[in-house]
Amino acid sequence: MDSDAAPFAYSGLERIFHERGRLAVCTCLVANTGGMRFTDLQDACALTDGNLNRHLHALAEVGIVSLERLRGNGRPVTIVRITPVGRKRFLAYIDELEAVVRAVHDRAQEDAAAPSWLPQL
Amino acid sequence: MDSDAAPFAYSGLERIFHERGRLAVCTCLVANTGGMRFTDLQDACALTDGNLNRHLHALAEVGIVSLERLRGNGRPVTIVRITPVGRKRFLAYIDELEAVVRAVHDRAQEDAAAPSWLPQL
Repeated sequence: MDSDAAPFAYSGLERIFHERGRLAVCTCLVANTGGMRFTDLQDACALTDGNLNRHLHALAEVGIVSLERLRGNGRPVTIVRITPVGRKRFLAYIDELEAVVRAVHDRAQEDAAAPSWLPQL
Repeated sequence: MDSDAAPFAYSGLERIFHERGRLAVCTCLVANTGGMRFTDLQDACALTDGNLNRHLHALAEVGIVSLERLRGNGRPVTIVRITPVGRKRFLAYIDELEAVVRAVHDRAQEDAAAPSWLPQL
C-alpha cells in the first residue's frame, strides 16, 4: 500500500531510530560530530552499559555510527561518532517525526465532525 | 537518574505510543473523537487485521482506546474511540516528540566544537 492510500502508515519512521534509547543516542551524536566518549553518552542518555552497548552495535551494524577504541596513557576510551550517512538518515527520520507532530496538532484542533461510520449503520 | 542529570533520557516518550503502528492509530483517532470503524482505521494506517487487533488490545488494556461492537442490519461493525484520558496522554507524548525534534534541529545547526573528550586523552 503506498502512502497516498494509507496516509498514516509512516513508513519513513525508520525502525532503527524509532526506539527511545537509540533516539537519545543519535540526538546526542548529531551535534557532536567529532565524537563522544562512551561514558559521556551513557550519562547523557541514562542508559546502562549493556543497553548502550546493544544499541551502538545495532547502529554500527547498519553504518549509522562508528566506534573507535583509543589507548592513551590511561584506560582505553571508546569514541562514538555518527557517520555522514547516519546523520543524513537520522535527519530524514526527524523530518518525518516533525510531520507526525504537525498532523496531530492539525487534527486535534479540528472540530469533531459527525463520525464517518454513522450513515452506514 | 533524573532528567537534569540525563537530558536525553526522554522518559516522557511513553512506550505504549512509541511504536509506529500505535502512533498511526492514535493520530487517526485523535481527530475522530466520535470514533472510527475498524476497517477504516486499518486502511488509513496500512495495518493487517492481526496487527491492528493486537495494537488495539494493547491500547484498550491501559484505557487509551475503547472498542464498541455495533450490530445493525448488516455485518457487525467495531467502532474504535480514543478515551479522554488516552487523548490527554497521547497529546503529552506528542509534546515530548516535539521537544525531541526541536533539540535535534538546534543541535544539528551548532558548529562542531572541539570534541569534549580531546583534553582527556
